[in-house]
Amino acid sequence: MFKRDFGGKKVLVTGGLGFIGSTLTHRLVEVGARVSILDALLTPYGGNKFNIKEIEDRVELVNGNITDEETVTETVRGKDFIFHLAGQVGYLDAKEKPFVDLDFNGRGNLIVLEAVKEQAPGARILFSSSRMVYGKIKEVPVKESHETQPLSLYGIHKLLGEKYYAYYAHNFGVHGMSLRIPNPYGPRQQMKHSKYAIVGWFIRQAMEGKKIQIYGDGNQLRDYIYIDDIVEAMMRLIVAGQDGEAYNIGSGRGITFTEMVDAVIEAVGQGEKESVPWPEDYEKNETGDYVADTAKIKQVTHWEPGVSLEEGLRRTVAFYRQNKNEYW
Amino acid sequence: MFKRDFGGKKVLVTGGLGFIGSTLTHRLVEVGARVSILDALLTPYGGNKFNIKEIEDRVELVNGNITDEETVTETVRGKDFIFHLAGQVGYLDAKEKPFVDLDFNGRGNLIVLEAVKEQAPGARILFSSSRMVYGKIKEVPVKESHETQPLSLYGIHKLLGEKYYAYYAHNFGVHGMSLRIPNPYGPRQQMKHSKYAIVGWFIRQAMEGKKIQIYGDGNQLRDYIYIDDIVEAMMRLIVAGQDGEAYNIGSGRGITFTEMVDAVIEAVGQGEKESVPWPEDYEKNETGDYVADTAKIKQVTHWEPGVSLEEGLRRTVAFYRQNKNEYW
Repeated sequence: MFKRDFGGKKVLVTGGLGFIGSTLTHRLVEVGARVSILDALLTPYGGNKFNIKEIEDRVELVNGNITDEETVTETVRGKDFIFHLAGQVGYLDAKEKPFVDLDFNGRGNLIVLEAVKEQAPGARILFSSSRMVYGKIKEVPVKESHETQPLSLYGIHKLLGEKYYAYYAHNFGVHGMSLRIPNPYGPRQQMKHSKYAIVGWFIRQAMEGKKIQIYGDGNQLRDYIYIDDIVEAMMRLIVAGQDGEAYNIGSGRGITFTEMVDAVIEAVGQGEKESVPWPEDYEKNETGDYVADTAKIKQVTHWEPGVSLEEGLRRTVAFYRQNKNEYW
Repeated sequence: MFKRDFGGKKVLVTGGLGFIGSTLTHRLVEVGARVSILDALLTPYGGNKFNIKEIEDRVELVNGNITDEETVTETVRGKDFIFHLAGQVGYLDAKEKPFVDLDFNGRGNLIVLEAVKEQAPGARILFSSSRMVYGKIKEVPVKESHETQPLSLYGIHKLLGEKYYAYYAHNFGVHGMSLRIPNPYGPRQQMKHSKYAIVGWFIRQAMEGKKIQIYGDGNQLRDYIYIDDIVEAMMRLIVAGQDGEAYNIGSGRGITFTEMVDAVIEAVGQGEKESVPWPEDYEKNETGDYVADTAKIKQVTHWEPGVSLEEGLRRTVAFYRQNKNEYW
């Protein structure tokens, strides 16, 4: 299926050296797409050249920033598909640097959409949004129609991005859509610090024999989704999604924090956990239990998650055992 | 009541030379506030020094742009109340210049809120938002909980502003709130072009003996609110509103386009109307009937609209008869 959709097609992946972008790029190259990557390799984000080492001679790599209009315009020109993943990645960084977050996650999307409108009006474009657009969760599983009152600037600017896609679809016929990603994990995620990747960070803690800290009672539900399932969903959605719409993705299974940590310890084969109190002010960022309702994306793409937490963790741990030096 | 709330207080009005800002400033000066205005007098917006002519020696006027961090920081410092009205004003201009709109109506709010957080943490601040945050109307009268899917970049960035106020209230205890204004009219509105002020523009057309064009059947409902009612609501709300909340304001009465035009012709004492077809693509921006549900603001402020459309138009026409040369 993907060979028919992407074979020989010109595809741009912004943020293509990062965790999700690079895994997507691997898969796109595999099905015969002509992939260009736009990535600025900024510290402290997740861009890592090692992520595309095996395929580096089969992709075009443009070193540039999503906030640089000229570079974006150039790289967007004539593309058939655009996966827009470049951005500021952490909600804590957004709090520290509100203007940077607005610039990357707000203005960056406007630049991409203006470029698509002018340079690649027939292109299909997928924006990697976040479940953080919802804010405090009122009802699980969460449907796309749930209220959007983000608790973080990161979530606010992701929501802004989504509104841009809806606007450009409605007003200019741009074929853009958004994917609301919950907690992703898997190989190729950066592990230098704990700010972006909770599962990855815990794997590192366990591998290094450090204690894994569990906040509060550890019963908060999260939706952890394995990278290959995300990539599969993105490739299906960019082909079949409706212009201007936002879609959830998720494993379909709510997992408590404690269950996740136990599964990490099991996969690593060692590790200890300890309970610690919630940090001060935690409730300002805590959304409450989150599990995605994924009926909407399933209806248009027939996508199904295929990798269980246990299997995903097994693969992730195996990857980091082999490539640890490249990621921390 | 207002003398007790604002007497001797330091008040900043951004965009204070504009239609709403200047009328607010008149009222604030009247009740003994020490008012500073920050205004950049940019073309083609509504800033007009004539708007504060009678009180110019009783206010401090800072000529500066809301996107200039240093100026904003200086003028915000130590204020008790901040009415933030400076911004890009028209949804058509936003479509032409998306980055300017993001800068003024998005980043501008972030600059103001960062400044308040650091320089005036106890201040109360009111943001002039718009009914354009709602987009296509699903149900009238419109409650604040109505879905927000703006049809214009102007509406998207006003919504972004509102989310910032909620975020700064929630995370940093900033006493900020938003007011969703529908179609305002009254003295001191600029009349040089038709882009911002439909009622004002029609008054000018009638006064000049030109035909007033009515799109389609003229049955679309709008909520026209007189400037003095807006100012009264703003002054009450900044005192009594809840941090982070957004409030509707409106006349409480849906008026068809044709009724409004008839009332304009009646108030001017001359004028003609003609039906014209909707412009191409109009439906992309047309929200459908709009009438505000104002229960929420009434509950916290006991505000009530006091000026009927007929009375408001009478006063507006009288003002422009006298001061026409200053506004067109």
